[in-house]
Amino acid sequence: MSTILNKFDERAKKVNSLVCVGLDAEISKLPEKFKALEFPQFEFNKFIIEETHEFAAAYKPNSAFYEAQGEQGMKELKMTVDHLKENYPDIFTILDAKRADIGNTNKGYVDSIYDWMGFDSVTVNPYLGFEAISPFTDREDKVAIVLCKTSNPGSGEFQNLKVDGKDLWQIVATSANTLLENGKNVMMVTGATYPEEMSAVRKIAPQMTFLVPGVGAQGGKVEDFLSDGLREDKLGLMINSSRGIIFAENPKEEAKKLRDEINKYRS
Amino acid sequence: MSTILNKFDERAKKVNSLVCVGLDAEISKLPEKFKALEFPQFEFNKFIIEETHEFAAAYKPNSAFYEAQGEQGMKELKMTVDHLKENYPDIFTILDAKRADIGNTNKGYVDSIYDWMGFDSVTVNPYLGFEAISPFTDREDKVAIVLCKTSNPGSGEFQNLKVDGKDLWQIVATSANTLLENGKNVMMVTGATYPEEMSAVRKIAPQMTFLVPGVGAQGGKVEDFLSDGLREDKLGLMINSSRGIIFAENPKEEAKKLRDEINKYRS
Repeated sequence: MSTILNKFDERAKKVNSLVCVGLDAEISKLPEKFKALEFPQFEFNKFIIEETHEFAAAYKPNSAFYEAQGEQGMKELKMTVDHLKENYPDIFTILDAKRADIGNTNKGYVDSIYDWMGFDSVTVNPYLGFEAISPFTDREDKVAIVLCKTSNPGSGEFQNLKVDGKDLWQIVATSANTLLENGKNVMMVTGATYPEEMSAVRKIAPQMTFLVPGVGAQGGKVEDFLSDGLREDKLGLMINSSRGIIFAENPKEEAKKLRDEINKYRS
Repeated sequence: MSTILNKFDERAKKVNSLVCVGLDAEISKLPEKFKALEFPQFEFNKFIIEETHEFAAAYKPNSAFYEAQGEQGMKELKMTVDHLKENYPDIFTILDAKRADIGNTNKGYVDSIYDWMGFDSVTVNPYLGFEAISPFTDREDKVAIVLCKTSNPGSGEFQNLKVDGKDLWQIVATSANTLLENGKNVMMVTGATYPEEMSAVRKIAPQMTFLVPGVGAQGGKVEDFLSDGLREDKLGLMINSSRGIIFAENPKEEAKKLRDEINKYRS
Protein backbone atom coordinates (compact mmCIF):
# COMPACT_ATOMS: atom_id res chain seq x y z
CA MET A 1 0.00 0.00 0.00
CA SER A 2 1.33 3.41 -0.92
CA THR A 3 2.59 5.83 1.69
CA ILE A 4 -0.15 8.39 1.18
CA LEU A 5 -2.92 5.82 1.71
CA ASN A 6 -1.23 4.92 5.00
CA LYS A 7 -0.76 8.47 6.20
CA PHE A 8 -4.12 8.69 7.97
CA ASP A 9 -3.66 5.22 9.56
CA GLU A 10 -0.22 6.10 10.92
CA ARG A 11 -1.45 9.32 12.45
CA ALA A 12 -4.59 7.60 13.80
CA LYS A 13 -2.43 5.02 15.57
CA LYS A 14 -0.05 7.67 16.91
CA VAL A 15 -2.78 9.76 18.55
CA ASN A 16 -5.19 6.84 19.00
CA SER A 17 -7.91 8.80 17.21
CA LEU A 18 -10.08 8.57 14.10
CA VAL A 19 -11.18 12.19 14.40
CA CYS A 20 -11.13 14.48 11.38
CA VAL A 21 -11.73 18.12 12.27
CA GLY A 22 -13.73 20.05 9.68
CA LEU A 23 -12.21 23.51 9.30
CA ASP A 24 -15.37 25.17 8.03
CA ALA A 25 -14.40 28.70 8.98
CA GLU A 26 -17.61 30.38 7.86
CA ILE A 27 -16.85 34.02 8.32
CA SER A 28 -20.16 35.09 9.86
CA LYS A 29 -19.82 32.43 12.56
CA LEU A 30 -16.30 33.30 13.70
CA PRO A 31 -15.86 34.79 17.18
CA GLU A 32 -15.63 38.58 17.02
CA LYS A 33 -11.98 38.69 18.06
CA PHE A 34 -11.02 36.81 14.86
CA LYS A 35 -13.21 38.86 12.55
CA ALA A 36 -11.15 41.95 13.37
CA LEU A 37 -7.84 40.39 12.26
CA GLU A 38 -6.17 40.74 8.86
CA PHE A 39 -6.55 37.01 8.12
CA PRO A 40 -9.61 35.98 10.12
CA GLN A 41 -10.17 32.52 8.61
CA PHE A 42 -6.50 31.57 8.85
CA GLU A 43 -6.10 32.86 12.41
CA PHE A 44 -9.24 31.03 13.49
CA ASN A 45 -7.99 27.81 11.87
CA LYS A 46 -4.60 28.21 13.53
CA PHE A 47 -6.35 28.54 16.88
CA ILE A 48 -8.52 25.47 16.22
CA ILE A 49 -5.49 23.46 15.11
CA GLU A 50 -3.60 24.40 18.27
CA GLU A 51 -6.57 23.36 20.38
CA THR A 52 -7.37 20.10 18.64
CA HIS A 53 -4.25 18.64 16.99
CA GLU A 54 -3.47 16.13 19.71
CA PHE A 55 -6.81 14.45 18.99
CA ALA A 56 -6.85 14.93 15.21
CA ALA A 57 -5.76 12.43 12.56
CA ALA A 58 -7.02 14.63 9.72
CA TYR A 59 -8.17 18.18 8.96
CA LYS A 60 -10.77 18.92 6.31
CA PRO A 61 -11.56 22.48 5.27
CA ASN A 62 -14.58 22.82 2.96
CA SER A 63 -13.62 24.96 -0.01
CA ALA A 64 -17.00 26.70 -0.18
CA PHE A 65 -16.39 28.73 2.99
CA TYR A 66 -13.12 30.09 1.59
CA GLU A 67 -14.37 30.68 -1.95
CA ALA A 68 -17.15 32.73 -0.35
CA GLN A 69 -14.43 35.24 0.59
CA GLY A 70 -13.05 35.47 -2.95
CA GLU A 71 -9.32 35.68 -3.57
CA GLN A 72 -8.71 36.54 0.10
CA GLY A 73 -10.34 33.27 1.14
CA MET A 74 -8.21 31.27 -1.29
CA LYS A 75 -5.13 32.88 0.22
CA GLU A 76 -6.20 32.02 3.77
CA LEU A 77 -7.03 28.45 2.74
CA LYS A 78 -3.51 28.06 1.38
CA MET A 79 -2.06 29.65 4.52
CA THR A 80 -3.99 27.08 6.55
CA VAL A 81 -2.64 24.07 4.69
CA ASP A 82 0.88 25.56 4.70
CA HIS A 83 0.61 25.93 8.47
CA LEU A 84 -0.44 22.30 8.81
CA LYS A 85 2.35 21.01 6.59
CA GLU A 86 4.93 23.01 8.47
CA ASN A 87 3.81 22.18 12.00
CA TYR A 88 1.99 18.85 11.76
CA PRO A 89 3.24 17.18 8.59
CA ASP A 90 1.94 13.77 9.68
CA ILE A 91 -1.70 14.89 9.85
CA PHE A 92 -3.72 13.92 6.75
CA THR A 93 -5.24 16.89 4.89
CA ILE A 94 -8.44 16.82 2.86
CA LEU A 95 -9.95 19.58 0.76
CA ASP A 96 -13.67 19.02 0.68
CA ALA A 97 -14.42 20.47 -2.74
CA LYS A 98 -16.53 17.74 -4.42
CA ARG A 99 -14.94 18.46 -7.77
CA ALA A 100 -15.46 16.78 -11.12
CA ASP A 101 -15.15 18.00 -14.66
CA ILE A 102 -14.26 16.37 -17.95
CA GLY A 103 -10.79 14.81 -17.99
CA ASN A 104 -8.74 17.57 -19.54
CA THR A 105 -10.29 20.30 -17.40
CA ASN A 106 -9.75 18.46 -14.13
CA LYS A 107 -6.05 19.16 -14.53
CA GLY A 108 -6.79 22.72 -13.48
CA TYR A 109 -8.26 21.45 -10.20
CA VAL A 110 -5.38 19.03 -9.74
CA ASP A 111 -2.91 21.88 -10.22
CA SER A 112 -4.80 24.00 -7.72
CA ILE A 113 -5.69 21.53 -4.98
CA TYR A 114 -2.89 18.96 -5.12
CA ASP A 115 0.00 21.17 -6.23
CA TRP A 116 -0.56 24.87 -5.53
CA MET A 117 -2.29 24.34 -2.19
CA GLY A 118 -0.70 20.97 -1.50
CA PHE A 119 -3.57 18.99 0.03
CA ASP A 120 -3.07 15.23 0.46
CA SER A 121 -6.54 14.53 -0.89
CA VAL A 122 -9.72 15.98 -2.35
CA THR A 123 -13.34 14.86 -2.46
CA VAL A 124 -14.62 14.14 -5.99
CA ASN A 125 -18.08 13.59 -7.48
CA PRO A 126 -18.63 10.43 -9.58
CA TYR A 127 -21.53 11.64 -11.80
CA LEU A 128 -19.26 12.12 -14.86
CA GLY A 129 -17.74 8.63 -14.48
CA PHE A 130 -14.30 7.50 -13.41
CA GLU A 131 -12.84 8.15 -16.88
CA ALA A 132 -13.45 11.85 -16.30
CA ILE A 133 -11.96 11.98 -12.82
CA SER A 134 -8.85 9.97 -13.67
CA PRO A 135 -6.59 13.05 -13.26
CA PHE A 136 -7.53 12.89 -9.55
CA THR A 137 -7.14 9.11 -9.18
CA ASP A 138 -3.96 8.75 -11.25
CA ARG A 139 -1.69 10.55 -8.80
CA GLU A 140 0.51 8.23 -6.75
CA ASP A 141 1.22 10.86 -4.12
CA LYS A 142 -2.39 11.97 -3.53
CA VAL A 143 -5.78 10.46 -2.69
CA ALA A 144 -9.15 10.96 -4.42
CA ILE A 145 -12.11 10.57 -2.06
CA VAL A 146 -15.17 9.61 -4.09
CA LEU A 147 -18.70 10.61 -3.00
CA CYS A 148 -20.64 7.39 -2.52
CA LYS A 149 -23.56 7.88 -0.12
CA THR A 150 -23.69 11.50 1.06
CA SER A 151 -25.02 12.58 4.45
CA ASN A 152 -27.72 15.05 3.35
CA PRO A 153 -31.44 14.24 3.79
CA GLY A 154 -32.15 14.19 0.03
CA SER A 155 -29.13 12.12 -0.97
CA GLY A 156 -31.36 9.21 -1.94
CA GLU A 157 -33.04 11.03 -4.84
CA PHE A 158 -30.48 9.67 -7.30
CA GLN A 159 -28.03 7.72 -5.10
CA ASN A 160 -30.74 5.26 -4.01
CA LEU A 161 -32.19 4.60 -7.46
CA LYS A 162 -32.31 0.88 -8.18
CA VAL A 163 -30.23 -0.49 -11.05
CA ASP A 164 -30.69 -4.25 -11.53
CA GLY A 165 -31.60 -4.60 -7.88
CA LYS A 166 -28.68 -2.51 -6.62
CA ASP A 167 -28.68 1.08 -5.45
CA LEU A 168 -26.61 3.56 -7.44
CA TRP A 169 -24.34 4.14 -4.42
CA GLN A 170 -23.54 0.40 -4.37
CA ILE A 171 -22.49 0.55 -8.00
CA VAL A 172 -20.30 3.59 -7.33
CA ALA A 173 -18.78 1.78 -4.34
CA THR A 174 -18.00 -1.29 -6.42
CA SER A 175 -16.30 0.77 -9.15
CA ALA A 176 -14.28 2.75 -6.62
CA ASN A 177 -13.20 -0.44 -4.90
CA THR A 178 -12.03 -1.91 -8.20
CA LEU A 179 -9.83 1.15 -8.67
CA LEU A 180 -8.34 0.64 -5.20
CA GLU A 181 -7.68 -3.02 -5.98
CA ASN A 182 -5.95 -1.89 -9.16
CA GLY A 183 -3.53 0.19 -7.17
CA LYS A 184 -5.17 3.62 -7.34
CA ASN A 185 -5.32 5.83 -4.27
CA VAL A 186 -9.04 5.94 -3.64
CA MET A 187 -11.21 6.46 -0.55
CA MET A 188 -14.96 7.04 -0.29
CA VAL A 189 -17.46 9.34 1.44
CA THR A 190 -20.23 7.54 3.36
CA GLY A 191 -22.44 9.68 5.58
CA ALA A 192 -22.85 8.98 9.29
CA THR A 193 -26.58 9.58 8.83
CA TYR A 194 -26.94 6.33 6.83
CA PRO A 195 -25.42 3.57 8.98
CA GLU A 196 -26.98 0.67 7.05
CA GLU A 197 -25.54 1.93 3.80
CA MET A 198 -22.11 2.38 5.42
CA SER A 199 -22.23 -1.18 6.64
CA ALA A 200 -23.03 -2.37 3.11
CA VAL A 201 -20.23 -0.24 1.63
CA ARG A 202 -17.81 -1.82 4.12
CA LYS A 203 -18.75 -5.24 2.76
CA ILE A 204 -18.09 -4.03 -0.79
CA ALA A 205 -14.78 -2.37 0.09
CA PRO A 206 -13.28 -4.15 3.13
CA GLN A 207 -9.83 -2.53 2.76
CA MET A 208 -10.85 1.03 1.97
CA THR A 209 -10.77 4.11 4.20
CA PHE A 210 -14.03 6.07 4.39
CA LEU A 211 -14.53 9.74 5.12
CA VAL A 212 -17.60 10.02 7.35
CA PRO A 213 -19.38 13.37 7.50
CA GLY A 214 -22.67 13.98 9.28
CA VAL A 215 -21.83 13.33 12.93
CA GLY A 216 -23.25 15.86 15.37
CA ALA A 217 -25.19 18.78 13.88
CA GLN A 218 -26.49 16.61 11.00
CA GLY A 219 -27.69 13.89 13.37
CA GLY A 220 -25.32 10.98 12.74
CA LYS A 221 -24.51 8.92 15.86
CA VAL A 222 -21.17 7.15 16.38
CA GLU A 223 -22.80 4.17 18.11
CA ASP A 224 -25.04 3.56 15.08
CA PHE A 225 -22.35 3.11 12.44
CA LEU A 226 -19.03 2.49 14.14
CA SER A 227 -18.74 -1.24 14.69
CA ASP A 228 -20.05 -2.12 11.21
CA GLY A 229 -18.17 0.71 9.53
CA LEU A 230 -14.72 -0.02 10.93
CA ARG A 231 -12.17 -2.00 8.99
CA GLU A 232 -10.97 -5.27 10.52
CA ASP A 233 -7.89 -3.46 11.86
CA LYS A 234 -10.20 -1.02 13.77
CA LEU A 235 -9.12 1.77 11.45
CA GLY A 236 -10.54 2.75 8.06
CA LEU A 237 -12.88 5.56 9.15
CA MET A 238 -12.08 9.27 9.15
CA ILE A 239 -14.90 10.60 11.28
CA ASN A 240 -15.49 14.26 10.65
CA SER A 241 -16.99 16.86 12.94
CA SER A 242 -17.01 20.50 11.92
CA ARG A 243 -19.44 22.82 13.70
CA GLY A 244 -19.64 20.50 16.70
CA ILE A 245 -15.97 21.10 17.42
CA ILE A 246 -14.84 24.38 15.91
CA PHE A 247 -17.70 26.55 17.15
CA ALA A 248 -17.93 24.87 20.57
CA GLU A 249 -17.16 26.80 23.73
CA ASN A 250 -14.17 24.50 24.20
CA PRO A 251 -12.99 22.95 20.89
CA LYS A 252 -10.27 20.92 22.59
CA GLU A 253 -12.72 19.28 24.95
CA GLU A 254 -15.15 18.50 22.12
CA ALA A 255 -12.40 16.94 19.97
CA LYS A 256 -11.29 14.81 22.91
CA LYS A 257 -14.88 13.86 23.67
CA LEU A 258 -15.47 12.68 20.11
CA ARG A 259 -12.19 10.77 20.08
CA ASP A 260 -13.09 9.02 23.31
CA GLU A 261 -16.63 8.25 22.24
CA ILE A 262 -15.35 6.65 19.03
CA ASN A 263 -12.74 4.66 20.96
CA LYS A 264 -15.39 3.24 23.30
CA TYR A 265 -16.68 1.25 20.31
CA ARG A 266 -13.26 0.42 18.85
CA SER A 267 -11.86 -1.70 21.65
CA MET B 1 -40.91 33.59 -17.35
CA SER B 2 -38.39 35.47 -15.25
CA THR B 3 -36.03 38.03 -16.72
CA ILE B 4 -32.88 36.05 -16.09
CA LEU B 5 -34.20 32.97 -17.93
CA ASN B 6 -34.90 35.25 -20.92
CA LYS B 7 -31.54 36.98 -20.90
CA PHE B 8 -29.85 34.48 -23.20
CA ASP B 9 -32.82 34.44 -25.59
CA GLU B 10 -32.91 38.23 -25.85
CA ARG B 11 -29.22 38.42 -26.61
CA ALA B 12 -29.45 35.46 -29.03
CA LYS B 13 -32.17 37.26 -30.98
CA LYS B 14 -30.26 40.55 -30.97
CA VAL B 15 -27.06 39.10 -32.47
CA ASN B 16 -28.85 36.22 -34.25
CA SER B 17 -26.53 33.74 -32.57
CA LEU B 18 -26.66 30.77 -30.19
CA VAL B 19 -22.90 30.82 -29.64
CA CYS B 20 -21.45 30.60 -26.15
CA VAL B 21 -17.72 31.28 -26.04
CA GLY B 22 -15.83 29.21 -23.49
CA LEU B 23 -13.26 31.42 -21.81
CA ASP B 24 -10.93 28.58 -20.82
CA ALA B 25 -7.80 30.70 -20.46
CA GLU B 26 -5.42 27.85 -19.60
CA ILE B 27 -2.24 29.68 -18.81
CA SER B 28 0.18 27.38 -20.65
CA LYS B 29 -1.82 27.76 -23.86
CA LEU B 30 -1.95 31.56 -23.91
CA PRO B 31 -0.01 33.39 -26.62
CA GLU B 32 3.38 34.58 -25.32
CA LYS B 33 2.45 38.25 -25.48
CA PHE B 34 -0.26 37.71 -22.86
CA LYS B 35 1.88 35.56 -20.57
CA ALA B 36 4.18 38.53 -19.99
CA LEU B 37 1.39 40.81 -18.70
CA GLU B 38 0.45 41.45 -15.07
CA PHE B 39 -3.02 39.88 -15.56
CA PRO B 40 -2.49 37.37 -18.38
CA GLN B 41 -5.80 35.50 -18.10
CA PHE B 42 -7.85 38.68 -17.81
CA GLU B 43 -6.05 40.43 -20.67
CA PHE B 44 -6.44 37.39 -22.88
CA ASN B 45 -10.16 37.20 -22.05
CA LYS B 46 -10.58 40.91 -22.76
CA PHE B 47 -8.98 40.38 -26.17
CA ILE B 48 -11.21 37.35 -26.90
CA ILE B 49 -14.31 39.25 -25.80
CA GLU B 50 -13.44 42.19 -28.06
CA GLU B 51 -12.93 39.80 -30.98
CA THR B 52 -16.03 37.67 -30.47
CA HIS B 53 -18.76 39.67 -28.70
CA GLU B 54 -20.75 40.49 -31.82
CA PHE B 55 -21.33 36.78 -32.33
CA ALA B 56 -21.67 35.77 -28.68
CA ALA B 57 -24.89 35.32 -26.72
CA ALA B 58 -23.04 33.92 -23.69
CA TYR B 59 -19.57 33.60 -22.18
CA LYS B 60 -18.57 30.63 -20.06
CA PRO B 61 -15.24 30.56 -18.20
CA ASN B 62 -14.42 27.20 -16.61
CA SER B 63 -13.41 27.78 -13.00
CA ALA B 64 -10.68 25.09 -13.06
CA PHE B 65 -8.38 27.13 -15.30
CA TYR B 66 -8.53 30.09 -12.89
CA GLU B 67 -8.31 28.05 -9.68
CA ALA B 68 -5.15 26.52 -11.17
CA GLN B 69 -3.57 29.98 -10.74
CA GLY B 70 -4.55 30.27 -7.08
CA GLU B 71 -5.75 33.56 -5.65
CA GLN B 72 -4.40 35.43 -8.69
CA GLY B 73 -6.63 33.35 -10.95
CA MET B 74 -9.70 34.08 -8.81
CA LYS B 75 -8.94 37.78 -9.10
CA GLU B 76 -8.62 37.59 -12.89
CA LEU B 77 -11.83 35.58 -13.14
CA LYS B 78 -13.65 38.31 -11.25
CA MET B 79 -12.02 40.99 -13.41
CA THR B 80 -13.31 39.11 -16.47
CA VAL B 81 -16.91 38.99 -15.31
CA ASP B 82 -16.72 42.63 -14.15
CA HIS B 83 -15.49 43.58 -17.62
CA LEU B 84 -18.41 41.74 -19.20
CA LYS B 85 -21.00 43.32 -16.91
CA GLU B 86 -19.63 46.78 -17.55
CA ASN B 87 -19.27 46.55 -21.31
CA TYR B 88 -21.76 43.92 -22.45
CA PRO B 89 -24.39 43.69 -19.72
CA ASP B 90 -26.85 41.92 -22.02
CA ILE B 91 -24.56 38.91 -22.60
CA PHE B 92 -25.44 35.89 -20.42
CA THR B 93 -22.60 34.76 -18.16
CA ILE B 94 -22.02 31.20 -16.95
CA LEU B 95 -19.43 29.94 -14.51
CA ASP B 96 -18.70 26.34 -15.39
CA ALA B 97 -17.83 25.05 -11.93
CA LYS B 98 -19.98 21.89 -11.64
CA ARG B 99 -20.56 22.57 -7.96
CA ALA B 100 -22.64 20.65 -5.44
CA ASP B 101 -22.37 20.24 -1.70
CA ILE B 102 -24.87 19.65 1.08
CA GLY B 103 -27.47 22.41 1.39
CA ASN B 104 -25.95 24.59 4.07
CA THR B 105 -22.48 24.51 2.56
CA ASN B 106 -23.63 25.46 -0.93
CA LYS B 107 -24.33 28.94 0.43
CA GLY B 108 -20.59 29.53 0.33
CA TYR B 109 -20.56 28.79 -3.40
CA VAL B 110 -23.67 30.93 -3.91
CA ASP B 111 -21.98 33.83 -2.14
CA SER B 112 -18.86 33.38 -4.24
CA ILE B 113 -20.26 32.70 -7.71
CA TYR B 114 -23.58 34.54 -7.73
CA ASP B 115 -22.76 37.44 -5.44
CA TRP B 116 -19.03 38.14 -5.12
CA MET B 117 -18.22 37.38 -8.76
CA GLY B 118 -21.70 38.16 -10.04
CA PHE B 119 -22.25 35.43 -12.64
CA ASP B 120 -25.77 35.00 -14.04
CA SER B 121 -25.54 31.22 -13.73
CA VAL B 122 -23.44 28.27 -12.61
CA THR B 123 -23.29 24.62 -13.62
CA VAL B 124 -24.26 22.21 -10.80
CA ASN B 125 -23.91 18.45 -10.31
CA PRO B 126 -27.07 16.50 -9.39
CA TYR B 127 -25.46 13.52 -7.57
CA LEU B 128 -26.42 14.84 -4.10
CA GLY B 129 -30.04 15.40 -5.16
CA PHE B 130 -32.05 18.57 -5.75
CA GLU B 131 -32.66 19.06 -2.03
CA ALA B 132 -28.94 19.68 -1.61
CA ILE B 133 -28.58 22.09 -4.51
CA SER B 134 -31.64 24.16 -3.64
CA PRO B 135 -29.49 27.17 -2.64
CA PHE B 136 -28.54 27.35 -6.34
CA THR B 137 -32.05 26.80 -7.71
CA ASP B 138 -33.89 29.02 -5.23
CA ARG B 139 -32.49 32.31 -6.49
CA GLU B 140 -34.93 34.31 -8.60
CA ASP B 141 -32.18 36.43 -10.15
CA LYS B 142 -29.83 33.58 -11.14
CA VAL B 143 -29.91 30.31 -13.07
CA ALA B 144 -28.69 26.85 -12.03
CA ILE B 145 -27.56 24.72 -14.99
CA VAL B 146 -27.85 21.04 -14.01
CA LEU B 147 -25.51 18.41 -15.49
CA CYS B 148 -27.72 15.90 -17.27
CA LYS B 149 -25.77 14.05 -19.99
CA THR B 150 -22.15 15.25 -20.07
CA SER B 151 -20.00 15.30 -23.21
CA ASN B 152 -17.06 13.15 -22.04
CA PRO B 153 -16.46 9.65 -23.47
CA GLY B 154 -17.04 7.90 -20.11
CA SER B 155 -20.18 9.82 -19.14
CA GLY B 156 -22.30 6.71 -19.56
CA GLU B 157 -20.69 4.82 -16.68
CA PHE B 158 -23.31 6.08 -14.25
CA GLN B 159 -25.46 8.45 -16.34
CA ASN B 160 -26.59 5.62 -18.65
CA LEU B 161 -27.43 3.11 -15.94
CA LYS B 162 -30.97 1.80 -16.37
CA VAL B 163 -33.52 2.49 -13.66
CA ASP B 164 -36.92 0.94 -14.41
CA GLY B 165 -36.16 1.07 -18.11
CA LYS B 166 -34.97 4.66 -18.06
CA ASP B 167 -31.42 5.98 -18.09
CA LEU B 168 -30.27 7.96 -15.09
CA TRP B 169 -29.86 11.09 -17.25
CA GLN B 170 -33.54 10.83 -18.21
CA ILE B 171 -34.52 10.77 -14.56
CA VAL B 172 -32.32 13.78 -13.83
CA ALA B 173 -33.87 15.58 -16.83
CA THR B 174 -37.38 14.86 -15.61
CA SER B 175 -36.64 16.17 -12.10
CA ALA B 176 -34.96 19.30 -13.47
CA ASN B 177 -37.90 19.94 -15.77
CA THR B 178 -40.34 19.64 -12.87
CA LEU B 179 -38.38 22.35 -11.08
CA LEU B 180 -38.61 24.59 -14.15
CA GLU B 181 -42.35 23.99 -14.36
CA ASN B 182 -42.57 24.95 -10.69
CA GLY B 183 -41.05 28.32 -11.43
CA LYS B 184 -37.40 27.67 -10.61
CA ASN B 185 -34.65 29.03 -12.86
CA VAL B 186 -33.16 25.82 -14.20
CA MET B 187 -31.32 24.88 -17.38
CA MET B 188 -29.47 21.66 -18.26
CA VAL B 189 -26.16 20.49 -19.74
CA THR B 190 -26.47 18.03 -22.63
CA GLY B 191 -23.29 17.23 -24.56
CA ALA B 192 -23.01 17.75 -28.31
CA THR B 193 -21.31 14.36 -28.49
CA TYR B 194 -24.57 12.56 -27.63
CA PRO B 195 -27.18 13.84 -30.14
CA GLU B 196 -29.72 11.08 -29.51
CA GLU B 197 -29.73 11.78 -25.83
CA MET B 198 -30.13 15.52 -26.47
CA SER B 199 -33.10 14.82 -28.67
CA ALA B 200 -34.67 12.74 -25.90
CA VAL B 201 -33.97 15.43 -23.30
CA ARG B 202 -35.70 17.97 -25.56
CA LYS B 203 -38.83 15.80 -25.50
CA ILE B 204 -38.69 15.68 -21.70
CA ALA B 205 -38.07 19.43 -21.33
CA PRO B 206 -39.57 21.21 -24.35
CA GLN B 207 -39.33 24.70 -22.83
CA MET B 208 -35.88 24.48 -21.25
CA THR B 209 -32.61 26.04 -22.41
CA PHE B 210 -29.68 23.62 -22.73
CA LEU B 211 -25.99 24.37 -22.43
CA VAL B 212 -24.22 22.28 -25.08
CA PRO B 213 -20.51 21.59 -24.61
CA GLY B 214 -18.48 19.25 -26.81
CA VAL B 215 -18.60 20.92 -30.23
CA GLY B 216 -15.27 20.99 -32.07
CA ALA B 217 -12.26 19.56 -30.24
CA GLN B 218 -14.43 16.96 -28.45
CA GLY B 219 -16.00 15.80 -31.71
CA GLY B 220 -19.61 17.04 -31.46
CA LYS B 221 -21.11 18.13 -34.80
CA VAL B 222 -23.75 20.86 -35.09
CA GLU B 223 -25.57 19.07 -37.93
CA ASP B 224 -26.02 15.98 -35.75
CA PHE B 225 -27.89 17.55 -32.87
CA LEU B 226 -29.23 20.94 -33.91
CA SER B 227 -32.63 20.35 -35.45
CA ASP B 228 -33.74 17.91 -32.74
CA GLY B 229 -32.10 19.90 -29.95
CA LEU B 230 -33.66 23.28 -30.74
CA ARG B 231 -36.74 24.51 -28.97
CA GLU B 232 -39.80 25.20 -31.08
CA ASP B 233 -38.91 28.90 -31.17
CA LYS B 234 -35.50 28.00 -32.72
CA LEU B 235 -33.79 29.06 -29.51
CA GLY B 236 -33.12 27.00 -26.37
CA LEU B 237 -29.53 25.95 -27.07
CA MET B 238 -26.38 27.69 -25.80
CA ILE B 239 -23.77 26.06 -28.00
CA ASN B 240 -20.34 26.33 -26.48
CA SER B 241 -16.98 26.31 -28.15
CA SER B 242 -13.82 26.97 -26.15
CA ARG B 243 -10.49 25.88 -27.65
CA GLY B 244 -11.93 25.95 -31.20
CA ILE B 245 -12.48 29.70 -30.88
CA ILE B 246 -10.17 31.17 -28.28
CA PHE B 247 -6.95 29.48 -29.41
CA ALA B 248 -7.69 29.84 -33.14
CA GLU B 249 -5.50 31.99 -35.38
CA ASN B 250 -8.53 34.25 -35.83
CA PRO B 251 -11.03 33.94 -32.96
CA LYS B 252 -13.46 36.40 -34.53
CA GLU B 253 -13.66 34.40 -37.74
CA GLU B 254 -14.15 31.14 -35.84
CA ALA B 255 -16.94 32.61 -33.73
CA LYS B 256 -18.67 33.93 -36.85
CA LYS B 257 -18.18 30.59 -38.60
CA LEU B 258 -19.82 28.69 -35.74
CA ARG B 259 -22.66 31.19 -35.56
CA ASP B 260 -23.29 30.84 -39.30
CA GLU B 261 -23.05 27.06 -39.28
CA ILE B 262 -25.61 26.88 -36.48
CA ASN B 263 -27.91 29.29 -38.29
CA LYS B 264 -27.87 27.16 -41.46
CA TYR B 265 -29.87 24.57 -39.53
CA ARG B 266 -32.08 27.06 -37.68
CA SER B 267 -33.92 28.59 -40.62
